[in-house]
Amino acid sequence: MRPSGRTTSQIRPVTITRNFTAHAEGSVLIEIGETKVLCNATVESGVPRFMKGKGKGWVNAEYGMLPRSTHTRNNREATRGKQTGRTMEIQRLIARSLRAAVDLKILGENTITIDCDVIQADGGTRTASITGACVALVDAINYMLKKNMIKANPLKYLVAAISVGVYKGTPIADLEYVEDSEAETDMNVVMTEDGRLIEVQGTAEEEPFSFDEMQEMLGLAKSAINELVDEQKKALA
Amino acid sequence: MRPSGRTTSQIRPVTITRNFTAHAEGSVLIEIGETKVLCNATVESGVPRFMKGKGKGWVNAEYGMLPRSTHTRNNREATRGKQTGRTMEIQRLIARSLRAAVDLKILGENTITIDCDVIQADGGTRTASITGACVALVDAINYMLKKNMIKANPLKYLVAAISVGVYKGTPIADLEYVEDSEAETDMNVVMTEDGRLIEVQGTAEEEPFSFDEMQEMLGLAKSAINELVDEQKKALA
Amino acid sequence: MRPSGRTTSQIRPVTITRNFTAHAEGSVLIEIGETKVLCNATVESGVPRFMKGKGKGWVNAEYGMLPRSTHTRNNREATRGKQTGRTMEIQRLIARSLRAAVDLKILGENTITIDCDVIQADGGTRTASITGACVALVDAINYMLKKNMIKANPLKYLVAAISVGVYKGTPIADLEYVEDSEAETDMNVVMTEDGRLIEVQGTAEEEPFSFDEMQEMLGLAKSAINELVDEQKKALA
Amino acid sequence: MRPSGRTTSQIRPVTITRNFTAHAEGSVLIEIGETKVLCNATVESGVPRFMKGKGKGWVNAEYGMLPRSTHTRNNREATRGKQTGRTMEIQRLIARSLRAAVDLKILGENTITIDCDVIQADGGTRTASITGACVALVDAINYMLKKNMIKANPLKYLVAAISVGVYKGTPIADLEYVEDSEAETDMNVVMTEDGRLIEVQGTAEEEPFSFDEMQEMLGLAKSAINELVDEQKKALA
Amino acid sequence: MRPSGRTTSQIRPVTITRNFTAHAEGSVLIEIGETKVLCNATVESGVPRFMKGKGKGWVNAEYGMLPRSTHTRNNREATRGKQTGRTMEIQRLIARSLRAAVDLKILGENTITIDCDVIQADGGTRTASITGACVALVDAINYMLKKNMIKANPLKYLVAAISVGVYKGTPIADLEYVEDSEAETDMNVVMTEDGRLIEVQGTAEEEPFSFDEMQEMLGLAKSAINELVDEQKKALA
Amino acid sequence: MRPSGRTTSQIRPVTITRNFTAHAEGSVLIEIGETKVLCNATVESGVPRFMKGKGKGWVNAEYGMLPRSTHTRNNREATRGKQTGRTMEIQRLIARSLRAAVDLKILGENTITIDCDVIQADGGTRTASITGACVALVDAINYMLKKNMIKANPLKYLVAAISVGVYKGTPIADLEYVEDSEAETDMNVVMTEDGRLIEVQGTAEEEPFSFDEMQEMLGLAKSAINELVDEQKKALA
Repeated sequence: MRPSGRTTSQIRPVTITRNFTAHAEGSVLIEIGETKVLCNATVESGVPRFMKGKGKGWVNAEYGMLPRSTHTRNNREATRGKQTGRTMEIQRLIARSLRAAVDLKILGENTITIDCDVIQADGGTRTASITGACVALVDAINYMLKKNMIKANPLKYLVAAISVGVYKGTPIADLEYVEDSEAETDMNVVMTEDGRLIEVQGTAEEEPFSFDEMQEMLGLAKSAINELVDEQKKALA
Repeated sequence: MRPSGRTTSQIRPVTITRNFTAHAEGSVLIEIGETKVLCNATVESGVPRFMKGKGKGWVNAEYGMLPRSTHTRNNREATRGKQTGRTMEIQRLIARSLRAAVDLKILGENTITIDCDVIQADGGTRTASITGACVALVDAINYMLKKNMIKANPLKYLVAAISVGVYKGTPIADLEYVEDSEAETDMNVVMTEDGRLIEVQGTAEEEPFSFDEMQEMLGLAKSAINELVDEQKKALA
Repeated sequence: MRPSGRTTSQIRPVTITRNFTAHAEGSVLIEIGETKVLCNATVESGVPRFMKGKGKGWVNAEYGMLPRSTHTRNNREATRGKQTGRTMEIQRLIARSLRAAVDLKILGENTITIDCDVIQADGGTRTASITGACVALVDAINYMLKKNMIKANPLKYLVAAISVGVYKGTPIADLEYVEDSEAETDMNVVMTEDGRLIEVQGTAEEEPFSFDEMQEMLGLAKSAINELVDEQKKALA
Repeated sequence: MRPSGRTTSQIRPVTITRNFTAHAEGSVLIEIGETKVLCNATVESGVPRFMKGKGKGWVNAEYGMLPRSTHTRNNREATRGKQTGRTMEIQRLIARSLRAAVDLKILGENTITIDCDVIQADGGTRTASITGACVALVDAINYMLKKNMIKANPLKYLVAAISVGVYKGTPIADLEYVEDSEAETDMNVVMTEDGRLIEVQGTAEEEPFSFDEMQEMLGLAKSAINELVDEQKKALA
Repeated sequence: MRPSGRTTSQIRPVTITRNFTAHAEGSVLIEIGETKVLCNATVESGVPRFMKGKGKGWVNAEYGMLPRSTHTRNNREATRGKQTGRTMEIQRLIARSLRAAVDLKILGENTITIDCDVIQADGGTRTASITGACVALVDAINYMLKKNMIKANPLKYLVAAISVGVYKGTPIADLEYVEDSEAETDMNVVMTEDGRLIEVQGTAEEEPFSFDEMQEMLGLAKSAINELVDEQKKALA
Repeated sequence: MRPSGRTTSQIRPVTITRNFTAHAEGSVLIEIGETKVLCNATVESGVPRFMKGKGKGWVNAEYGMLPRSTHTRNNREATRGKQTGRTMEIQRLIARSLRAAVDLKILGENTITIDCDVIQADGGTRTASITGACVALVDAINYMLKKNMIKANPLKYLVAAISVGVYKGTPIADLEYVEDSEAETDMNVVMTEDGRLIEVQGTAEEEPFSFDEMQEMLGLAKSAINELVDEQKKALA
């Protein structure tokens, strides 16, 4: 039924490459099928103004698509002079998901910023960003531990994310672009490595969805995220 | 357990006032407890450029908070020169929810824009916006029918929304500000009048949530939205 | 002669409602006929950078129209990314008028910001804003006195404002929209409660006006402002 | 009493130089004392979108100060990315004043834009702009007549402007910077050559002003504008 | 003398990878030492407004650096809301260089846009962008020929670029970051494959340079660009 | 051959007027033929944030064209809300050229800003800006010496600039607009008074240029800049 011949629960091949670029404290290229996102983590001491004096750190994220990462060219946001609503929504989601994985008190008054830049898009760029960014975050934390910027590891658990949806009436996992553009429902799920939920964002694109479909999608997400966490661990080993 | 003494499933008193202002084709003030949102619907013939020539209409929404609708003053977005990410995220959510309720082909090449402006905020402004906007949308559609701009009613079903969450370990419905600011999990749910899901946006603020908690929250949402749809119908009667 | 049947000097019914919203230190809804403006005063300690270290306070104002407060929808300024020239001109006028009423030395290094948001427009929104904002200002000052933020009352006098104009060759007071859009001359007058002038802004829209017409308009303004000050005092009683 | 030794009604020396630059259809340098403004008129066929199809023309104005036209340097507005409220207020005043002098029907679907750029500022830049711009406007109209872009002269009357004020308790005409910065009241008056009013903008800076002071200021303005119109006519002769 | 041990004329290893991403009509990753730039060419029919109706095409370029392509993180231009002067200067240089290589009449009313995004920076990103973009341009032209969008090949010659400079008193070719940041003079040279000049941009950073040094630098540039053109041809073979 | 009848090496008449406006610490009007640029230097103590604490000063420049300094009107950059790429490129060039002339350590923690505003354009505005700005810079430095803001003169040498190009196959100096718009090559050269190079920016507009043409253009530039430095010295005498 799926254009790729995948089963409903089958995710695309995943490759996680660490140290993809030279300068960032964490630099990860994540590839899920034809979707490729570069996740660079930057460590800076100090925190944004609204966090000052609380004895806590901050984790932030920014997201961008290269103008021709997509089938047709999108205008460059830097040229337009502002980020789209979609971009802001996505980078807020990534940042919240990563902050959920970190004990900000242990992080101390330091900031980790993760830049997720989409090199090539084929569906699921926001969830790939989260999964890849978490690995870059771990590398940034290891850098801080090595440099004695922090005394303990602030990571509470790995987080990973997947998109699930209802496509031609059937719940499926890891939608690629041709599926995503025709799906009745699209849902992004972020979970911890121990199977709890960080974010659930489900949207009926064509047709409202039922509680049962929601259950099925969550089940698919859980199994897919298990696989992704395995890939994260393998990459970090 | 709740500061207001409400039960876990009890929503705040709801008042829906139609024709609140004079000029808009639909003008609704919705009050849910101390949260007050003015939802004005504007009917215009024609559609935005990206929809031209498809024989379909468009439904859009914009959201704003008056600077002093909140406990402390927020900078006016018009003065800052841009909308925050939060605002863009919310108005995209409102717009998607309303579009899900309308058959755009029957709407023809007309646009309905719903402005949701928060007069006073006490939690749940985005879900109140959706519930109120849907009533304004119905009034705008009735205006179009009366003016013969459309021949059939494009409304597929009423939609309404509620926030649910986990507060001090317990799932509750319709969080007010003091609950929201301390909740472990916050989830916004948009449903149709026949009990199907349009949007689910759950976020772990402090602690990841379990599948069971998610189920409980969805159940609370369903019951609360039933009540809200009753209020909508009563107001429209 | 006037569409409403009013006499040349007759102003529309005025209603001033204090404590209209819950959070602001002063919150006033002013209604003059069908024109409705919400004026919220915010008290903050500290002053803008350019006023620092002078031992004086600051009073500022911002003005906005809800997109559908008017007959046809105006684009939301927050979405456009900037305020129009008209908006900036109006909020500068409101701020100057209120500052003229306050002894900034007695105010100390505190700032009062008045947000005037037009809920419904039918002519005279800027003058209604000033009249309503002055009442909100008094409430904010009373709040500061109660909280011991200031030791003496910095209010020098009440200020109120009215629009006058030449309509079909005759000077009239308090133009509503249908008059305003056809008036030959439009003049906004701000006065103190003791009958002195704070601001006079007269504009020939269609035809230059004579010194005699100017005199007549000022006379109408004085009498109208007397009535408005009475309404302010009644509301504050 | 005045720092310059001028009498209360005495204006500074006025020089109006036509054809100051080579490219504009009207190019006038106006000097009033140490205030110097370059007023360039541009003729273009066609009108802005909101005027299309009405068979009428448009007159617009833009105003700017060179960053170091003033005692201390102001940030360049092009660098800041937006015009200040003051700039917008002034250019709207100039444009309204010039439009009042022109029969837009006779102008046909053509646009005249007047750029008023302050080369050196010593008080009264907005009124000098109007007086100079009117001469540039006449030159632009003459250009159009010569090129047969219009068949009749759309100018209804010359307009000129002056600032008056109350300084140390005494009404005076044509305030220079040292007077303006200490004046109790500041009023800008725009009049036609036949002595009627186009714009009156009076502001109490320190102290409210009385009806009598207003009368005196208007009298001073009338006499000063008479002199300015003589200078305009002399320059145009 | 050079940190890398290179001779004065020796350029870093060059790798040009075509078809680096899937969607663009030309997609080239160019690596010169540790500098890596992704150059994506997009073909669109039609031209920008200012070129309409001339029967000619257009070639444009945009340039960006990923925030963490550098040693320390740069703010994302999309977040800041505008491109820096440096970015605008560079993308104008790239675009002019590529346009010089194309006969715009033969291109017809089509537009080719080249996005140059720096993945990793170690000096010479603008010249690497030009060298890589030219290969992507060739691929885009080949795509157009295959799709019959154009009948003849509009490419006049290959262009390539290199940075040269004076470092510790000695002219050298292909400065890497540690050299660039200490060089007395920095010069970017763009040439055609037949050895003529398209752009020369030389800047004295610390010390003015002599005509003799300029000559030496141009000589180094010519030889380096010969090598780069060989690499371009090898990649295109 | 040249429209003006000038020889290939002949530059237009040069006039440098000091103290052109009253407020700036250096104020120079430079006229080269019909090109007229006002260069105002502002002295401020303190340096921009990125220079703080280095014990060094800063020299900056901003450039603007009055909207009607050109044959047809350009949109005002302050109204558009941003500077064009051309403007940013030019002001960066001016600033770099002036900084090259100043020993920033001797300048101490002070900033000199030079505003170059084009009153009338006929080709060569950026090079005229540099030549005029250098004289304004000298006046600003003299002001600082007189006020004891600095103890020694930080000027290392005068700098001046000229445009050269290839026009109808022949290298010429000081292109005016009609030449510039048809030139095959356009090159801007900035030199010190002792004949060394500060900036060379050559661009092939129509046809690549040869090393020999480049040599000839540099020779023309050297001779022209000699003349300009003589004019600078004469003006400063």
